Amino acid sequence: MARITQKLRVLKLHADGTQRRREDVLAAEEPLEIRVNGTSFSVTMRTPGDDFDLVAGFLVSEGVVSTAEHLSRMIVCEGEPGQENTYNVIDATLGAGAEPPDTSLERHVYTTSSCGICGTASIEAVRKSSAFLRPAAPDAPRVQLATLLSLPDRLRDEQALFDRTGGVHAAGLFTLDGELLCLREDVGRHNAVDKVVGWALRDGRLPLRDAVLQVSGRASFELVQKCVMAGIPIMSAVSAPSSLAVEMARDTGITLAGFSRGETVNVYAGAQRIDLTKTDGTDTRGMDDRGTDAAVKAPERATAL
Amino acid sequence: MARITQKLRVLKLHADGTQRRREDVLAAEEPLEIRVNGTSFSVTMRTPGDDFDLVAGFLVSEGVVSTAEHLSRMIVCEGEPGQENTYNVIDATLGAGAEPPDTSLERHVYTTSSCGICGTASIEAVRKSSAFLRPAAPDAPRVQLATLLSLPDRLRDEQALFDRTGGVHAAGLFTLDGELLCLREDVGRHNAVDKVVGWALRDGRLPLRDAVLQVSGRASFELVQKCVMAGIPIMSAVSAPSSLAVEMARDTGITLAGFSRGETVNVYAGAQRIDLTKTDGTDTRGMDDRGTDAAVKAPERATAL
Repeated sequence: MARITQKLRVLKLHADGTQRRREDVLAAEEPLEIRVNGTSFSVTMRTPGDDFDLVAGFLVSEGVVSTAEHLSRMIVCEGEPGQENTYNVIDATLGAGAEPPDTSLERHVYTTSSCGICGTASIEAVRKSSAFLRPAAPDAPRVQLATLLSLPDRLRDEQALFDRTGGVHAAGLFTLDGELLCLREDVGRHNAVDKVVGWALRDGRLPLRDAVLQVSGRASFELVQKCVMAGIPIMSAVSAPSSLAVEMARDTGITLAGFSRGETVNVYAGAQRIDLTKTDGTDTRGMDDRGTDAAVKAPERATAL
Repeated sequence: MARITQKLRVLKLHADGTQRRREDVLAAEEPLEIRVNGTSFSVTMRTPGDDFDLVAGFLVSEGVVSTAEHLSRMIVCEGEPGQENTYNVIDATLGAGAEPPDTSLERHVYTTSSCGICGTASIEAVRKSSAFLRPAAPDAPRVQLATLLSLPDRLRDEQALFDRTGGVHAAGLFTLDGELLCLREDVGRHNAVDKVVGWALRDGRLPLRDAVLQVSGRASFELVQKCVMAGIPIMSAVSAPSSLAVEMARDTGITLAGFSRGETVNVYAGAQRIDLTKTDGTDTRGMDDRGTDAAVKAPERATAL
């Protein structure tokens, strides 16, 4: 789709004062208005493409839908007569079993009456609205360490849009064996994850119990929240998590890895799901959240971006 | 402030299966509820610290205030009796000349009745709500190219939180001579900019006609919008802009630079404000938006992150 990128003239300036004109390819960014049953619900700035997936995934993240049947249909709203259709307004009609969201702003911005808003309250709100909290077995599924370490490179290899623009985030859904199920790119990291989750919902795959989500950037609270809402048990990020992302992962039983850099990875929660057994069978150590401390050394610093 | 970071135990896994326990320092992320005249207006996930600046800057970005007098006072709401105060709820009381925002969700999510939502409509909405659109003289102020190229390193040198966590965005406000006025860090890039803008508002500095904003990451539509709302004429990003960010900058007369990497920088809009004159006076070429094409060569690719 041409609208995913846009070509623009740009001036490249060098420190010595020389200037060169060139054409640059930029990631497109346009607003998408999401309506539910005809009522405006949200606007997000996103890279056009896979917009039905984005809407479906957004509604999963918001706790409005959790099965394909909850979404009766989605349509691109027509433009006004005489106006060009921007394809930037999508209306989702809910099916049986799904309740329209409360669209009062008070509710929408989420206020708590009890203790002022805090991380605990935010986590509690997500817990209450998730249909898929915690996998059935706390230590399942398991992913091989070698597989986990390979995912950032796999993601990068498949990132067509980034190659052209250098300016987008990616989210990739992999099987436990490292097979790529779905990859989406977007100028917004949360949109990339919503597009993946929406693809899975529409394909009847929620909850995603046997999958790993690899993201290209940092792990924010919001991204871990999306994993909880979609039932994804393992999330890995190339860069740092925030403190609340870790709290959320620990509280909801999700495995959270960060600074995944090919040779090493930091595990912040749910380490029991990472299998250190080598494929030749020489090492059968498992791990638990307390760690085995077999090789504790002086603290070392993970390479920061 | 201790709450800006949080120490956590983490397991570092190596590809050979060894594991080491260490302590990791993470950037804190907590929700902040923003109230206006006692009514809930928005919740943002942010790194605690400089919260009054964040609220003030957010209200500038939303078009609610544009001078220090528009903000009568801000208070941290007390926790409920018997509950610990989370310091995560701030109420802003508006002063004379400021209108409370419409808090109906329909309005809040911004719908357009005319043509479906599009980039042009989004830009138009920002144009309408900015008190500081376009600097007085279209080609003023000007920044030396050498100064512009030095800002990413300056920003990085001052990023205390990033050094410890590797996981935050930064926004730095500089004078045209490269003097740092204000630097803020946050897990959210938009929050870092809001904190800088809020500092300026509270210090009576809006519109910021003679300043350059340098940001650590990408240039989204949202960040350019914040510059328009605060009257900042020049914005520079370390990484790529989106297409709508460029459209917005071109339409509102802002200078937008990207991929600023020490030796080179790409200019996407408003190149006339970048002074190529060397300090020894040997080169006096200026530039305009059409470029001088003095050294046009085959297109080359700026180094992507």
